[in-house]
Amino acid sequence: MTAPDHAHVAACLRLARTRGIGPVSYHRLIRAHGSARAALDMLARGREADRVPPIDDIAREMERTAAIGGRILVHGDPDYPPALAVVADAPPVLSVIGDAGLLRGRIVGVVGARNASAGGMRIAQSLATMLAAADVTVMSGLARGIDAAAHRGALPARRTVAAIAGGLDCPYPPEHARLHREIAEQGALVTEAPPGTLPQARHFPRRNRLIAGISLGCVVIEAALRSGSLITARMALDYDRIVFAVPGSPLDPRCHGSNDLLRQGAVLTENERDILRELPSGPVPPPLFAPVPDADPIVTEMAENTPSSPRMDAQGAHAAVRELLSFAPSSVDDLVRRCQFSTATVLAVLSEMEMSGLIDVLAGDMVVLSSAPPA
Amino acid sequence: MTAPDHAHVAACLRLARTRGIGPVSYHRLIRAHGSARAALDMLARGREADRVPPIDDIAREMERTAAIGGRILVHGDPDYPPALAVVADAPPVLSVIGDAGLLRGRIVGVVGARNASAGGMRIAQSLATMLAAADVTVMSGLARGIDAAAHRGALPARRTVAAIAGGLDCPYPPEHARLHREIAEQGALVTEAPPGTLPQARHFPRRNRLIAGISLGCVVIEAALRSGSLITARMALDYDRIVFAVPGSPLDPRCHGSNDLLRQGAVLTENERDILRELPSGPVPPPLFAPVPDADPIVTEMAENTPSSPRMDAQGAHAAVRELLSFAPSSVDDLVRRCQFSTATVLAVLSEMEMSGLIDVLAGDMVVLSSAPPA
Repeated sequence: MTAPDHAHVAACLRLARTRGIGPVSYHRLIRAHGSARAALDMLARGREADRVPPIDDIAREMERTAAIGGRILVHGDPDYPPALAVVADAPPVLSVIGDAGLLRGRIVGVVGARNASAGGMRIAQSLATMLAAADVTVMSGLARGIDAAAHRGALPARRTVAAIAGGLDCPYPPEHARLHREIAEQGALVTEAPPGTLPQARHFPRRNRLIAGISLGCVVIEAALRSGSLITARMALDYDRIVFAVPGSPLDPRCHGSNDLLRQGAVLTENERDILRELPSGPVPPPLFAPVPDADPIVTEMAENTPSSPRMDAQGAHAAVRELLSFAPSSVDDLVRRCQFSTATVLAVLSEMEMSGLIDVLAGDMVVLSSAPPA
Repeated sequence: MTAPDHAHVAACLRLARTRGIGPVSYHRLIRAHGSARAALDMLARGREADRVPPIDDIAREMERTAAIGGRILVHGDPDYPPALAVVADAPPVLSVIGDAGLLRGRIVGVVGARNASAGGMRIAQSLATMLAAADVTVMSGLARGIDAAAHRGALPARRTVAAIAGGLDCPYPPEHARLHREIAEQGALVTEAPPGTLPQARHFPRRNRLIAGISLGCVVIEAALRSGSLITARMALDYDRIVFAVPGSPLDPRCHGSNDLLRQGAVLTENERDILRELPSGPVPPPLFAPVPDADPIVTEMAENTPSSPRMDAQGAHAAVRELLSFAPSSVDDLVRRCQFSTATVLAVLSEMEMSGLIDVLAGDMVVLSSAPPA
């Protein structure tokens, strides 16, 4: 695999920035049409053409990213984080500044309370230092408290990655402007947002998702019940990553959420050995939620052995998929398994149906009959 | 079941105080001979007669126990703690002072560091108060730190039991003399030692065993690695009781042992609800290590249906058991299952063999061919 050329990146970025195209739809369109360019061509011919952003906007974003020393990594780029690449809602494009090579290695997320105790920050920093010494990159969210302590622990070894909610040129919180710069110089910063984006509350779940998806596992230190760190841990579990939690006194409400993770089976973590013992040896976990769902081999073989012209196949598939769909969400994988047509065929059918407004695509590659079909 | 009479208690106590007769041998002799009196008669006729203590010593122990307001509970007494009664090495006799009725209820052990933190003691005391409020009796070992805090938390509700290493009239440590007296008046104290016994280091494992065996589960708060509390937890696991552990900061070495219990599967405990959720509803856990092992029902039926005179049965059993024995330990239960004779028959054979010095009886109802058989 070679680094993608400028036009390819521009097409991917343009498709990714099209209104109404989330990561799941993006990957489905790519699979159905073979490339971002082909998908854009299809969109340009449809009634949603005005949702595609002008090519100038895209060029401006690419220039601005390059001007601040950043780089756009599209899904499929050899530097795109491998653990993130295999999730169903992998971001189509990432903006990175610093040592993008770190994203290809073994990464562990460390998250926790912004109002952390001195002890909690000591644990975060020392864990990060020891993980970095073991050639593991420490990822966090550049927030106050645990996040900053984790970054600082791994920074001297040049082994830290910060996921941020805003643009690469928009440090947040303000008092971490210097840490932001140090990480850009000695580690790496990654975001889904274009340059100039000021982080807003609604951006933080995507920031957390980057940590959960890029890391092989996530360490939670001092997380209160219903805290953001628990949401990151939940995302990590959804991605089938290992969740680690540092135990703490029941007298400290900042430990109730992390203790509760232990109750639910998180790996009890007192030091880096507890983490290294459980961590996969490579940079990618077993792919459970691949963006290109492989059909059951037997089913695929059956589909391939069924004598049928492409046209008959498409007509039959359309009917079969329609019959399988309901107003309750079904997963694309499930549809593929149940209808005995190839993955590519089913995805093409679904893509057409989505374009016609017959179905809605939900998060996690789930599809559902649209409750308001076009007249 | 009625309370045992004075002569019965005296016989049990005398057999229990016979040199070389530990709990396992005691129960085996009782099963083989039907009663403590019959076992003593057998011993009196043998070459070990001088190991049996004079009846006067026994009378004196009983008088002295009564004089300080105590009571001797022999195994089989309706007030004998039911959870302890079912373990293989259940103490033949206990001395109790205070509300012996507490021993029949649901009991939870709370153990931990003597040099506990203020926070640890706060947790112990508050857990104990809340457990007592839920009609659960809190048991501990009257030591400094966590033990004392647990007793104090449950004392106002008159729901605490202290297991002690020395005699009922020998408070230890000295600064807990008042707590000892308060528990005797408002709870219960229990020991295996006769009155006047000053506690020595070698007595403490038996004290810990009482906590592990009488309780349905054991809560560990602030236990360092290789601490006595971990030994109590290990005993509780051996008895198939639930082990609970309160999480603590990895920065505090007093929490490393309790955190390690969590790593091994102990129930994470922040408050009394974590305990009550797991605790059996009755005072006795499922009997796994019954002192009278019940043979597999099918095997028992086969044995019962085998036509054989009692004498043939005994001869056949002797040969069968001898063949099954080796210099590697076997459990009595296993022998019973493998030889198709009744439990009573196998136990009688083993008892004879032990008396003849052919076998050694190990802890946990294990038997092994003696490596030094009599000439």
